[in-house]
Amino acid sequence: MFYIGVDLGGTNIAVGLVDEIGNIFSKNSVPTHREREYSEIIKDMATLILDLINKEGLKIEDFQSIGVGSPGVPNCSEGEIVYASNIKFRNVPLRKELQKYINLPVYVNNDANVAAYAESVKGAAKGAKCAVAITLGTGIGSGIVVDGKIFSGFNNAASELGHMVVEMDGEQCGCGRRGCWELYASATACIRQTKKVASENPQSLINKLVDGDLNKIDAKIAFDAAKRGDIAGQKIVDQYIKYIGEGLANIVNIFQPEVIVIGGGVCKEGEFLLAPLRKHIEENTFAPSHNIKIAELKVAQMGNDAGIVGAAMLRE
Amino acid sequence: MFYIGVDLGGTNIAVGLVDEIGNIFSKNSVPTHREREYSEIIKDMATLILDLINKEGLKIEDFQSIGVGSPGVPNCSEGEIVYASNIKFRNVPLRKELQKYINLPVYVNNDANVAAYAESVKGAAKGAKCAVAITLGTGIGSGIVVDGKIFSGFNNAASELGHMVVEMDGEQCGCGRRGCWELYASATACIRQTKKVASENPQSLINKLVDGDLNKIDAKIAFDAAKRGDIAGQKIVDQYIKYIGEGLANIVNIFQPEVIVIGGGVCKEGEFLLAPLRKHIEENTFAPSHNIKIAELKVAQMGNDAGIVGAAMLRE
Repeated sequence: MFYIGVDLGGTNIAVGLVDEIGNIFSKNSVPTHREREYSEIIKDMATLILDLINKEGLKIEDFQSIGVGSPGVPNCSEGEIVYASNIKFRNVPLRKELQKYINLPVYVNNDANVAAYAESVKGAAKGAKCAVAITLGTGIGSGIVVDGKIFSGFNNAASELGHMVVEMDGEQCGCGRRGCWELYASATACIRQTKKVASENPQSLINKLVDGDLNKIDAKIAFDAAKRGDIAGQKIVDQYIKYIGEGLANIVNIFQPEVIVIGGGVCKEGEFLLAPLRKHIEENTFAPSHNIKIAELKVAQMGNDAGIVGAAMLRE
Repeated sequence: MFYIGVDLGGTNIAVGLVDEIGNIFSKNSVPTHREREYSEIIKDMATLILDLINKEGLKIEDFQSIGVGSPGVPNCSEGEIVYASNIKFRNVPLRKELQKYINLPVYVNNDANVAAYAESVKGAAKGAKCAVAITLGTGIGSGIVVDGKIFSGFNNAASELGHMVVEMDGEQCGCGRRGCWELYASATACIRQTKKVASENPQSLINKLVDGDLNKIDAKIAFDAAKRGDIAGQKIVDQYIKYIGEGLANIVNIFQPEVIVIGGGVCKEGEFLLAPLRKHIEENTFAPSHNIKIAELKVAQMGNDAGIVGAAMLRE
């Protein structure tokens, strides 16, 4: 028996056919064209699924269910998307609409939750009793898995760890609050911090690396400069790692997850990032000094497949 | 069939006999004398239980289990206390020691978890799918109940919400971190904030209410002054409520609990406290603007019985 996973994003609709142990054996994607009506987007989703099934010489009856990871807040029991900002969904009956084309059970959940679920079932947090996955990107995406189930609170809107205030009256967030963690620890934040320090330190290696064009600064360049001994670069990296670490120490004190999975481009820094983060967590949580084990910090393993695999594994 | 609940505190050992629906029908307590060896403390615990059973004309066989809520970090599966600061327990085999005197199953958990559990089973969060209980006292105690079970992470040390940093590089906490929530929102913090403002505003009503003796300031006095129109008092109250609210908004964004239960003396302020807190949460979380229901804020109902009742209801 097989499963269908759909990763609905602001840019692409990606579909994968997945076997019982979570391996994708066929996948494809089409542009979302997110300005469209939901009915058109879901019609494309259905076409993509049916084409893929057909291409593999399979039938709908060979599949157990369809799982969809979507941006926004789902109503999991009804299979709806209550609200999403980047695809402008409002009370979209995703399950019902998709079942117009394909008569299979349809499970719906939030994309970050689904990615965390994939990591917990098959990735970096496989087998963990409690896992928290965070992705340092434009903002901070996050998902929580407890006892093998996605934790999303009573209204399916939980685990917005990026909108945990770590600096009261701090920087203004798009969510309306001030001082949210993602304003300090996302990739976007790293870029902003790098630009600021580079503009204050025109002699830094960072400025040389971008030929003096601060618009070329990405989330990686401070790390590159730091590794080559640049003082300004090291200062940015130290500060940025502290910002990530403060949120992670909060996550440890709040959840004591067995594993914290970190995703996003910055994870390519490997131990250069992870080693000081582990140190920060150990120094900022109370368990280690009493010989109580704390969370392992691991890099996400599922990559771009997380959305499809996690969605395919959704159950009632 | 009945249950035994033990609330082990730094000051007293309180024991209650509890019926199947969580009513205490007999209780008693003795001083902990916390400087003693654990074996002596647990012996007193057993004597207290046996005397109470005897007094009620019951037998050990009339009871299903003993639950103990203890300060510190438990090992629930082994029935041990791994570590506690205020009773100086280190790797105490509580279950094994208590079973030397009474042959019943013994379940052990953290006192704040147990109190939250009592609220979720029988108190302010009865029936809630997910509940978070916080107590604003010397510090901030907190417990999380998900799907009828205490959530305490993979190592039983979770839900230390008071040690969530809300102000990076803020005030120094005893836990080693800076800017923990409890340094801003505990009753102790309220007293400190009140003393500061009172010393800066010698003409305030607060100073009159304590006859100029700042050592008489408690966590209530700023509220008393504010209610009587004192500007300094209102300033303290507004700031303190904001501090509580920032943490609660974090809790909503992280957990989306169905109910948040607040305990501690400050709750006697009732709607004077709760109404602005609700407003702060609504304005600082994203769900309400999309017509998604968020947590109800309620005052703890179980009072001093929470520890006994929650402990008595502990199961494997």
